[in-house]
Amino acid sequence: MSDLEYLRSLIKAIPDFPQEGIMFRDIFPIFQDPRAIEMLVSHIVNHINETIKEKVDVIVGLDARGFLFGPMVALRLNAAFVPSRKKGKLPGETLSADFKKEYGVDTFEMQVGAIKSGQNVIIMDDLIATGGTAVAAGQLVEKSGGKLLEYIFLIELADLNGRKNLTAPIYSMITF
Amino acid sequence: MSDLEYLRSLIKAIPDFPQEGIMFRDIFPIFQDPRAIEMLVSHIVNHINETIKEKVDVIVGLDARGFLFGPMVALRLNAAFVPSRKKGKLPGETLSADFKKEYGVDTFEMQVGAIKSGQNVIIMDDLIATGGTAVAAGQLVEKSGGKLLEYIFLIELADLNGRKNLTAPIYSMITF
Repeated sequence: MSDLEYLRSLIKAIPDFPQEGIMFRDIFPIFQDPRAIEMLVSHIVNHINETIKEKVDVIVGLDARGFLFGPMVALRLNAAFVPSRKKGKLPGETLSADFKKEYGVDTFEMQVGAIKSGQNVIIMDDLIATGGTAVAAGQLVEKSGGKLLEYIFLIELADLNGRKNLTAPIYSMITF
Repeated sequence: MSDLEYLRSLIKAIPDFPQEGIMFRDIFPIFQDPRAIEMLVSHIVNHINETIKEKVDVIVGLDARGFLFGPMVALRLNAAFVPSRKKGKLPGETLSADFKKEYGVDTFEMQVGAIKSGQNVIIMDDLIATGGTAVAAGQLVEKSGGKLLEYIFLIELADLNGRKNLTAPIYSMITF
């Protein structure tokens, strides 16, 4: 079994969560298995080292599941880790970008100065569905003056075709 | 400058956030500096290796800032990482424990089976204030049948004396 097959086998499908008709993909079993944590992180780091030719300066991780592996990847790449969080969670001066949810609009924020103009950035999250939060995070990178090299997702829900909304290259490890 | 002095120097004090009269301690500058990420993680791992005589089976990290370094510590200890999250965020069967907030009550959850009976557990978060969330996480470990060895916090707000509410040993790296 390859590393990706092993990681895929750990992701648990939970029907009707958080609401009826949604098949939830639970990544937490991966984190109960330190061998799988290592596979996940080294897969992402190897992917970046093999395909991104520029120095990566910043990993942006989306609140909250992007926090689980973003800092580990940043550390191994000798890069900074910068969070993108829901409105009101980050102190100090912030940039903001709205995104559409099923009902209404929500806002993501990033601290001013966390990304410096011209820095090379990768955005990371556990999952891409419709891509709304990923688009907002991309706008925050742009407002910061950063250069977005790639989006990396552990899981892509292909049916929802969120990738059509993103303007940077996308790498997803596992597709459902 | 020692590692702890360096980490302390990076933590930014932001007055009146999230509300007037609160001095917020922002740990995110640590994560913008990969050298500091490494210091933080290796300090915690060294502390555990030097003081905890039993095998640590599980690191519990509190949503969301405990996710930033809990998985890294778990990986280095060859332990599992298990999240404790606000009500409604974790799929599948969950255990729950209430905690008091300034206004009203909130609930923390943990997935059933994530901690196995008899496992040795350490709970980790970025900061202890009044200790409400830490108490709730401790109750979840107990309900799971785990043995809580220690609480580890990056920051302790000593004035609030949250440690008086906790029934397991406490290690905090930096005190304000």
